[in-house]
Amino acid sequence: MAIRVAVDAMGGDDAPAVIVEGAVRAVESSKGRIEVQLCGPETVVQAVLEKFGAPSGIEIVHAPQVIGMGDSPVAAVRAKGNSSIHVGLRNHKERLADAFLSAGNTGAVGAASLFVLGRLPGLFRPSIPTLYPTLKGVCTVLDVGSNMDSRPDHLLQFAKMGSAYARIIMDVAQPRIGLLSVGEEPAKGNELVRAAHELLVNSMDLNFIGNIEGRDIFYQKADVIVCDGFVGNVILKLGESIRTVVPEMIEQELAKLQSKPSVVDLLKEVLAALSRRFDPERYGGGCPLLGVEGEVFILHGSTTAVAVEQCIKQAAQAAKLNLTSAIQRALAP
Amino acid sequence: MAIRVAVDAMGGDDAPAVIVEGAVRAVESSKGRIEVQLCGPETVVQAVLEKFGAPSGIEIVHAPQVIGMGDSPVAAVRAKGNSSIHVGLRNHKERLADAFLSAGNTGAVGAASLFVLGRLPGLFRPSIPTLYPTLKGVCTVLDVGSNMDSRPDHLLQFAKMGSAYARIIMDVAQPRIGLLSVGEEPAKGNELVRAAHELLVNSMDLNFIGNIEGRDIFYQKADVIVCDGFVGNVILKLGESIRTVVPEMIEQELAKLQSKPSVVDLLKEVLAALSRRFDPERYGGGCPLLGVEGEVFILHGSTTAVAVEQCIKQAAQAAKLNLTSAIQRALAP
Repeated sequence: MAIRVAVDAMGGDDAPAVIVEGAVRAVESSKGRIEVQLCGPETVVQAVLEKFGAPSGIEIVHAPQVIGMGDSPVAAVRAKGNSSIHVGLRNHKERLADAFLSAGNTGAVGAASLFVLGRLPGLFRPSIPTLYPTLKGVCTVLDVGSNMDSRPDHLLQFAKMGSAYARIIMDVAQPRIGLLSVGEEPAKGNELVRAAHELLVNSMDLNFIGNIEGRDIFYQKADVIVCDGFVGNVILKLGESIRTVVPEMIEQELAKLQSKPSVVDLLKEVLAALSRRFDPERYGGGCPLLGVEGEVFILHGSTTAVAVEQCIKQAAQAAKLNLTSAIQRALAP
Repeated sequence: MAIRVAVDAMGGDDAPAVIVEGAVRAVESSKGRIEVQLCGPETVVQAVLEKFGAPSGIEIVHAPQVIGMGDSPVAAVRAKGNSSIHVGLRNHKERLADAFLSAGNTGAVGAASLFVLGRLPGLFRPSIPTLYPTLKGVCTVLDVGSNMDSRPDHLLQFAKMGSAYARIIMDVAQPRIGLLSVGEEPAKGNELVRAAHELLVNSMDLNFIGNIEGRDIFYQKADVIVCDGFVGNVILKLGESIRTVVPEMIEQELAKLQSKPSVVDLLKEVLAALSRRFDPERYGGGCPLLGVEGEVFILHGSTTAVAVEQCIKQAAQAAKLNLTSAIQRALAP
C-alpha cells in the first residue's frame, strides 16, 4: 500500500507553485509507492495542479485558510483553525495521511502540531534535528533553534530522540552521542552542560561518548551532537555560511597571485594561504587578559618562537597605547 | 624610552627554549624599542639565553618556582607565590615592567593576575578576546571561554572592553558591536541575550548594531562580537578546525574527479562540489519535528521543487519505518 503524505500546498515563499511541482515529482518518481494530499484552497491549488496534467496519486484536500510567513504563530494557530496546516495535520491525526510536511511558518507548524497531534508522553519539548556536513558524511545536531533556554533533562531527551532518529533514518547502528562543550572533561562547560553530562552518563540506553568540542564537529567524532537550541542555531548558521565564504576566500587568494603556476602548485598555494588565514598563530597567537589592572597577555601552550616574538611586540604596543586605561574608561558607567 | 615586557620564561609546552628564542627575536628586531625581562629559575634561563650570545636588552629576573601546565590553577597560585608567573606580574605591578605575558597555565595566569594586579574598578569578570578570520580581515570575539555562565551585565562589560580593545589595538575608529543571537529581532535569542540586548541598546557610548547571527561572522557584519564564553569557545574552535577541514574536503573532492580538467575548470568544479556539501538543501532540506504524536516535516520557506520532492520521500520513509514509535520508545525512562 502506498504511503500517503499530506503536504501544506500554501507554505513557503514560492507556494503553491514549487510545492505542487515537488509533489508531482515525488509521486511520479515513486512509481505508486507515495501518494500526496495537497492541502490548501481548492481552486488555487487546482489551478496549479492542472498545469501538470492532474497526475494520479495526487489529491487536493480543501483548506480555506492560509497562515502567512509573517503571522504570529500562536495567534495564527488559534485564529485560523482551517488553515492548510491544520487541515493537513488533522488528516494525519485521523490516519488519512501517514505524514505531514510544510515549508510554511515554522513556529505555526510547531504550535499547530502540538495542538492537533499532541506531544509524546513524557516529552518536555519537541526538537528539530538537522544535518551537518563532515569529513565523513553528515552528523545530526539537535536542538538547533526550537528551544532557547534548555534544562539538563531537555538535553537528555534531545539525546534520546536524536539517537532514535540517527538509528532509524540515518541508518547508524549505535549512534555515538556527543555533548557539545568547551573541553573533554566532564567538569568542563557551563552549568547546563555539566548537569546534562551527568544525566547522559547515567543513561544506560545511549551510546554516550562524552563531551565534544567545536573542533570535533567536522571530524564527526559523534553521530549525534546534543546542545541547546541557541548554540545549535549559531553553529548551524555559521556552518551554512562556509558554503559561500570559502569560495570567496579562495577567490581572494587567487586574485593575490602574481605568477601563473601549474594546477598542482596553484591548488597548494591557495590552500596554504587559506590555511594561514585560519591559523590561530597568525595574529601573534597571544590575547590580552582584559579587565585586570595591567597589560597581561596569554599565549597558547603550544606556542612558537615567532608567536612569542609577535606577542611581545603586541604587549609592548598595548603598554605604549595604554590599553588598560582605555578599558577602564570604557567600563565607567 | 624602551617598553619593558616581563615574560614568563617557563610557560608553554616548549619552554624555556621557544620563549627565550622569541624574546631574543623581539628585542633584536625592535632595535632598542623593546626590552624583555625573562622570569624563571636563573640558572635554567641563563643556560638557554647563553646560546643566543646574551644579547643586550634582555635581563633575567629570578623566579625559583614553576607552575606546571597541569597544575590546578587556584591551588598552584596559592602554593607557589614565587613562580615565574608571580614574579613577572609583581614586576609589572611595581612598574618595573610595562606588560607581562605567559604561554603557561591559562587558569593560573588569570588567577594570579587577579591576585597580584587586581581587577579594574567596577569590573565583574576579566575576559580574553580573540580574533576571528573574516572575508574582510578579522573581527574580535569575546568572551571565548573564560566565563561559562554569564549575566546580561557581564555581556555589556564584554562589549565595552571589546570596543576599547578594537579601537586601541585593532585601530577601528568606531567598532561595530554585534550581539551573537539566533535572529536579528531584539526578541530573538535566549533569556541572557534578550536581556543583554536591552542593556546594549541603552548604552550610549557603544556603536551597537544589534543582534548578529552565526552566518554573519565570516562576513564581518560586526567588528566586535559579544557572546558568553561557552558559545564563544564553541565557535572559536569550530572556526579553527576549518583550517584543516577545508583542505581535506578539497582533497576528497579532487580524488573523486575522473578527468584532468584545466586549472580554471578544476577550481570551479572543486568549489562547486564543496559548496554542494554545505548546501542545506542537499539532504532534502526538510527536517522532522521530533516529539509530537506524528510524522511532521518542516522545510525552509525558500524551498525548491526538488527539495519538496526529497522531503516528501523522507516523510514517507519516516512513516514507513515508524520514526515516531522509535522516538516514543527512546523517550521511555
